[in-house]
Amino acid sequence: MIKETALSNNDRAAALIQALPYIQSFKGKTVVVKYGGNAMINEELKAAVIQDVIFMACVGIRTILVHGGGPEIEAMLKKTGKESRFVNGLRYTDEETMEVVQMVLCGKVNKDITLLIEQAGRKAMGLCGIDGAMLKARRIRGEDDLGLVGEIEEVDTSVLQAVLDSGAIPVVSSVAYGTGEDEGKPLNINADIAAAKIAAAIGAEKLLLMTDVQGILRNVQDPDSLIKKARRSELEGLKKDGIVSKGMIPKVDCCTLALDGGVKKAHIIDGRLPHALLIELFTDEGIGTMLER
Amino acid sequence: MIKETALSNNDRAAALIQALPYIQSFKGKTVVVKYGGNAMINEELKAAVIQDVIFMACVGIRTILVHGGGPEIEAMLKKTGKESRFVNGLRYTDEETMEVVQMVLCGKVNKDITLLIEQAGRKAMGLCGIDGAMLKARRIRGEDDLGLVGEIEEVDTSVLQAVLDSGAIPVVSSVAYGTGEDEGKPLNINADIAAAKIAAAIGAEKLLLMTDVQGILRNVQDPDSLIKKARRSELEGLKKDGIVSKGMIPKVDCCTLALDGGVKKAHIIDGRLPHALLIELFTDEGIGTMLER
Amino acid sequence: MIKETALSNNDRAAALIQALPYIQSFKGKTVVVKYGGNAMINEELKAAVIQDVIFMACVGIRTILVHGGGPEIEAMLKKTGKESRFVNGLRYTDEETMEVVQMVLCGKVNKDITLLIEQAGRKAMGLCGIDGAMLKARRIRGEDDLGLVGEIEEVDTSVLQAVLDSGAIPVVSSVAYGTGEDEGKPLNINADIAAAKIAAAIGAEKLLLMTDVQGILRNVQDPDSLIKKARRSELEGLKKDGIVSKGMIPKVDCCTLALDGGVKKAHIIDGRLPHALLIELFTDEGIGTMLER
Amino acid sequence: MIKETALSNNDRAAALIQALPYIQSFKGKTVVVKYGGNAMINEELKAAVIQDVIFMACVGIRTILVHGGGPEIEAMLKKTGKESRFVNGLRYTDEETMEVVQMVLCGKVNKDITLLIEQAGRKAMGLCGIDGAMLKARRIRGEDDLGLVGEIEEVDTSVLQAVLDSGAIPVVSSVAYGTGEDEGKPLNINADIAAAKIAAAIGAEKLLLMTDVQGILRNVQDPDSLIKKARRSELEGLKKDGIVSKGMIPKVDCCTLALDGGVKKAHIIDGRLPHALLIELFTDEGIGTMLER
Amino acid sequence: MIKETALSNNDRAAALIQALPYIQSFKGKTVVVKYGGNAMINEELKAAVIQDVIFMACVGIRTILVHGGGPEIEAMLKKTGKESRFVNGLRYTDEETMEVVQMVLCGKVNKDITLLIEQAGRKAMGLCGIDGAMLKARRIRGEDDLGLVGEIEEVDTSVLQAVLDSGAIPVVSSVAYGTGEDEGKPLNINADIAAAKIAAAIGAEKLLLMTDVQGILRNVQDPDSLIKKARRSELEGLKKDGIVSKGMIPKVDCCTLALDGGVKKAHIIDGRLPHALLIELFTDEGIGTMLER
Amino acid sequence: MIKETALSNNDRAAALIQALPYIQSFKGKTVVVKYGGNAMINEELKAAVIQDVIFMACVGIRTILVHGGGPEIEAMLKKTGKESRFVNGLRYTDEETMEVVQMVLCGKVNKDITLLIEQAGRKAMGLCGIDGAMLKARRIRGEDDLGLVGEIEEVDTSVLQAVLDSGAIPVVSSVAYGTGEDEGKPLNINADIAAAKIAAAIGAEKLLLMTDVQGILRNVQDPDSLIKKARRSELEGLKKDGIVSKGMIPKVDCCTLALDGGVKKAHIIDGRLPHALLIELFTDEGIGTMLER
Repeated sequence: MIKETALSNNDRAAALIQALPYIQSFKGKTVVVKYGGNAMINEELKAAVIQDVIFMACVGIRTILVHGGGPEIEAMLKKTGKESRFVNGLRYTDEETMEVVQMVLCGKVNKDITLLIEQAGRKAMGLCGIDGAMLKARRIRGEDDLGLVGEIEEVDTSVLQAVLDSGAIPVVSSVAYGTGEDEGKPLNINADIAAAKIAAAIGAEKLLLMTDVQGILRNVQDPDSLIKKARRSELEGLKKDGIVSKGMIPKVDCCTLALDGGVKKAHIIDGRLPHALLIELFTDEGIGTMLER
Repeated sequence: MIKETALSNNDRAAALIQALPYIQSFKGKTVVVKYGGNAMINEELKAAVIQDVIFMACVGIRTILVHGGGPEIEAMLKKTGKESRFVNGLRYTDEETMEVVQMVLCGKVNKDITLLIEQAGRKAMGLCGIDGAMLKARRIRGEDDLGLVGEIEEVDTSVLQAVLDSGAIPVVSSVAYGTGEDEGKPLNINADIAAAKIAAAIGAEKLLLMTDVQGILRNVQDPDSLIKKARRSELEGLKKDGIVSKGMIPKVDCCTLALDGGVKKAHIIDGRLPHALLIELFTDEGIGTMLER
Repeated sequence: MIKETALSNNDRAAALIQALPYIQSFKGKTVVVKYGGNAMINEELKAAVIQDVIFMACVGIRTILVHGGGPEIEAMLKKTGKESRFVNGLRYTDEETMEVVQMVLCGKVNKDITLLIEQAGRKAMGLCGIDGAMLKARRIRGEDDLGLVGEIEEVDTSVLQAVLDSGAIPVVSSVAYGTGEDEGKPLNINADIAAAKIAAAIGAEKLLLMTDVQGILRNVQDPDSLIKKARRSELEGLKKDGIVSKGMIPKVDCCTLALDGGVKKAHIIDGRLPHALLIELFTDEGIGTMLER
Repeated sequence: MIKETALSNNDRAAALIQALPYIQSFKGKTVVVKYGGNAMINEELKAAVIQDVIFMACVGIRTILVHGGGPEIEAMLKKTGKESRFVNGLRYTDEETMEVVQMVLCGKVNKDITLLIEQAGRKAMGLCGIDGAMLKARRIRGEDDLGLVGEIEEVDTSVLQAVLDSGAIPVVSSVAYGTGEDEGKPLNINADIAAAKIAAAIGAEKLLLMTDVQGILRNVQDPDSLIKKARRSELEGLKKDGIVSKGMIPKVDCCTLALDGGVKKAHIIDGRLPHALLIELFTDEGIGTMLER
Repeated sequence: MIKETALSNNDRAAALIQALPYIQSFKGKTVVVKYGGNAMINEELKAAVIQDVIFMACVGIRTILVHGGGPEIEAMLKKTGKESRFVNGLRYTDEETMEVVQMVLCGKVNKDITLLIEQAGRKAMGLCGIDGAMLKARRIRGEDDLGLVGEIEEVDTSVLQAVLDSGAIPVVSSVAYGTGEDEGKPLNINADIAAAKIAAAIGAEKLLLMTDVQGILRNVQDPDSLIKKARRSELEGLKKDGIVSKGMIPKVDCCTLALDGGVKKAHIIDGRLPHALLIELFTDEGIGTMLER
Repeated sequence: MIKETALSNNDRAAALIQALPYIQSFKGKTVVVKYGGNAMINEELKAAVIQDVIFMACVGIRTILVHGGGPEIEAMLKKTGKESRFVNGLRYTDEETMEVVQMVLCGKVNKDITLLIEQAGRKAMGLCGIDGAMLKARRIRGEDDLGLVGEIEEVDTSVLQAVLDSGAIPVVSSVAYGTGEDEGKPLNINADIAAAKIAAAIGAEKLLLMTDVQGILRNVQDPDSLIKKARRSELEGLKKDGIVSKGMIPKVDCCTLALDGGVKKAHIIDGRLPHALLIELFTDEGIGTMLER
């Protein structure tokens, strides 16, 4: 995964010591990682993320992994010959689709991540929003009915706290326990939002959103125009100026949600780089865009 | 589900009081329920099982639910067009099949049971043997290689104890964490055996195997020939005499495993009767066959 | 005690399941039972109360039993040839009378109940308001001096909480630790009031007053005129209308005291019916009158 | 009670400092005091015992008070006109007598001591062997049936430990919970033996038996012949030599029981001297006879 | 040390009993003793202080000993030939002087006291303000720069609480952890002030300042003019009237600091009398001057 | 201190990931570092050791620092003009010398290290063997009386465990609490031996002895002849062959003491290299000689 460069003992010690102030400052803090995109598909990147997450846990960061799993759901829908219905261009989640979503996220993606962490030597617990009724959601009622798609109404972090206290890493699928008219049914929820809501509810220090872009670029064409840091108050302006646009808008909105909920910092990082989590957390320079209150 | 008979208040109180000595004696004890068969398919029976399990938890029994899910796996394999390879008449679990097993058990069956318990008003935690590396298994090496099928080598009950201590009901899928040559892979395991091994490891008072038969019948043709109680030492004889035969053999072997592992009593009960669990646990007469050391 | 009717297993299971929602909702809640009247004299009723109380404790209700013991005090006063002095028709509690009160309540009635509970299989602790200075009282100074009769000024629930935490059932005699001019002397207190004050101080869910009447009747002559439920705000009206009158007035006042002190519900129930406590708590219909805020 | 001598501040400090090594060595140790005899009748002595017991508790000695109450029982029997039946000169405890014993010990004597301790500023808990089934006894079957008189078979110290942990002083009446043929009935037990059995069961450092004699005298006529210390192994000899005789025999046997049960030291002390407990525990010279293993 | 007078057992018991109400009222309270002056030089007085402190701890007072060590510092400066620089008559604490201060206080005086307490049979922990960053100070910036002399800005009592909880006696040297421009350097602080600040931060019941005077005298010439008690509000007046003057001013200011910080009582006591601490705490009369809010 | 090489983010991440397996395996383990030699004199090395120790603590290693301080003692003896007496070439530790040893070690060296750790952002507690009577020693009685020099007889690790549990780093001076004829006196002890004894008593994973040599060299002239690993059983042979000789003998004996006391591994490492601790613990290659059972 990472290029094995010939590091001397001196270099290795220097690297550890450079990481020390970050390690000291994050000790005992909670960090929520939204795991997704290429980092969840490419085997090398996947292995690196697992190492990063274990490193984080080892130095005392209470690390929570939240994941979705779009491509795997897509593949399974295709495999089972399920035809999708679309409402104004958006897929409608009927019961049959929800069954696949739940099965793939909670049964496949979630347990596979859990297996990888345990194989790498640390206990993990594969959970979803249904377990301990951790995430309670209500069906979204927008202009178009999208079916069994929910928005989170309540987060009960007691299960997560207990898992973290035990030293294991919680891995959380973005499936919620339905309330209201859908009481007791599973609801599909957006994984980015789930991560942000969990981060806010648990009082996380940081939310790390793994994406397939570099971060917020002032000029999308120019990789050197990365905005390394922005305040909550500047985000509206960036949207108005068209700098935050298209696919970046929901990412930024998700970070805003976290910041407004009390999370100290929300990072949009480039999951295509191996060890993006470690580099963002433990080096002076970092990568990606950091948003703060 | 249950026939609503016109019970007077006097009757109701009498029923509660008759249950009292059983409630007193099971308080704080652990009971493992292997949930399966018709009781998992028929909606009415399903609802009754959930009520029974919640009743058990409410009166202080530390209740663990272990489940398999043969029919749902079968259905999904068919749906995805997966052709099965057979070895001497037994299905070979290749990687693709295992993927379906894991997905259906951990993602569908497990979370559906969890949803039902929570809808009925009690916290539940849907887990499998991978979570917290609760069940470690090694590939079975018999005469025929059956692929990713494991036998349990190690049970770590710490996660279950923590869940029980928190007041939630653990629901456990029969998928294990592979060790040895299959280190880090999921392995398919027999759910009856998983329940027996968990019962032994956690020092359970009882193992309740839900089946689709009445119990051990002296004469399979005669429903009145039910053996209500037998000792561990009599089981070999019952096999030799052909009384325990065919499909009953693995059930009895599973109970033997539990008894030899220290479980006080193992019950083979008829899951086709509504509230079979309650009746077995809280009435003088009980139903099914009770095996004891 | 209860008429042994021929209940089928189906009936028994139905009765348990009907009780389940009540069991679920009372779990971990505190219920104070004022035990008295016929239920304390008739041996069959007595045995039924003990069973009810143990059932309550078994399903997780933190149950406290408070008792007086008028008839037994009366009998002992007679036996020891103690002549009573009356003030405006009310007995004056001189030191010698108080000695008998204390002896009979704390030494006889209290320990006899404790014995019965333990014989039925659960730990109990026989206490009075003196122990751990649980109930501190000051002599009532009304128009007539009634001697060593007190009104509770302070309730220290720490002993009760510790007993409940240990799983035992506290049985409490209505004798208090005197303060003020009677510092260090025992004072006689009203058991109904003691139960209400304890219920308020410990934040009880319910106060159950066992009486020798059906509850509040709209027409005392008509047993079918039972008021099953009334709000705190309606009670004044019921008094004015003469519906709550005579002996019912102090019972209702006692419930009011509890409700005003934060107890959710106060029940006046008919202790002459066997298992009145179970029926009131665990059936839809209930018996007696429930008062709520 | 104690003669108020004119002590200078220097004297007072000297007295405290002389007590210091004893205070240091008894800290956290458990001491069982059998309270009885004159010290329980004379008001001045009584007040001094209460002060001593509170002093002991204050300097960290886990102090348990066990008491009987012969004279008060006698008086109440007389008062209620109960005629006693005698068997070979020993009183037969029939049910009616037992009722009086229980009532007087648990209701009168026990709560009066509790009141005194609390008035002197420390929490106390008045208990008997029935509470929490602390003392389980079986009817003594000797040559003569003496009725409801028991010998202790089992001591459950958990209640005592909890009371001591809470900082309160347990006060224990010598009434036990009957088992065997007397299951659930109260049984009268010897208070000295109860104290010795409790001391052994709880692993006490010391048993202090308060008596109305000076201790073991080599020559009963000569108060200067007090044996200040004897070993367990010498006791048989002292009996043979007639030095331990008559009423001293059961006292010594009781101490032997304690020593054989693991208690470090058993003291026979003169309860007729004010502050005998303090003097025995906290001065170099002490009073009475100390028996050790 | 103390004159061994011939105390009878009666006298000894009387002395203990007279101390009892004080023992009862101080149990579990925290008392900070500023140890200094003659009581730290004279061997007999020193031994008596150690006994007093152990007695205090034994009867449940959470006792903290704070000390300076002027004379020993002086001696070592002389021994090492260090010449002192003076600023307007006050010694300037340069780095070399500070090194000696730290070494003598934390290494010599502190550990010697610790040794004495342990030799007398109780665990002690020798600490200074640097340990666990218990005392954080900033260099005093008055008219004259006095060098490495600090005033306390922050007291972290967690270490002290942990030591007290473990049953050991904390012994604290008046050296602080420097902050601001002296970050990470040791700073010399006034021991009286350190004791007062610790007393306030930990919510002490009492501060006992050991001095070489009798207390506040109305007329310094007249030993019989001792003011035994004064309120915080009277102190300004006493200063104006010249009754509190010269060396008494900083002592009184230090007590004021404690009282204003929430300490209940601050005592100026005469450390030249053996067992001054015991006499002040456990006798009716006491010695010295008690200041209260 | 360390050469600041231009490490890329990729390099940095690689270094952290290479350290991960070591971090995982040492988590929660106890490591005792004997700090001494050049690493305690050279300012750069000193700073690096502090960083290393904080890094160790941050990644969950329970780290204990034990130190002596020969050169500083020497300097202070000279400064105070104390003339040394020698016995067969070894310095005799008289009371005056011991006073200096105690003062310098516990007051100067110990608190200076404590200051450095706290300045670098982690709590530390400066202690010696006197505190909590952690190290009890008896005067060595060899051929020559060396005065107040002790050998450790008993290690009480409770203080160290409490400090480690609180998250602080204990820093321990090699001064012990004297017993036997020197009861209550301080005794000088060898810091290497103190570290080994503490490591054994606390069940440490590792003892790291910082020295001024490379480790055990097969040929002292040849730095490439370093023995990287040796078993306990080979050590006698290495001594016989003269490979372990002179100053290396006591170092190896000290390691043997630790290994025989249950410590898993003892390392002789070269404290002259910056970050020797980190390199030894967290890189594949390591430095120095590792001795194991």
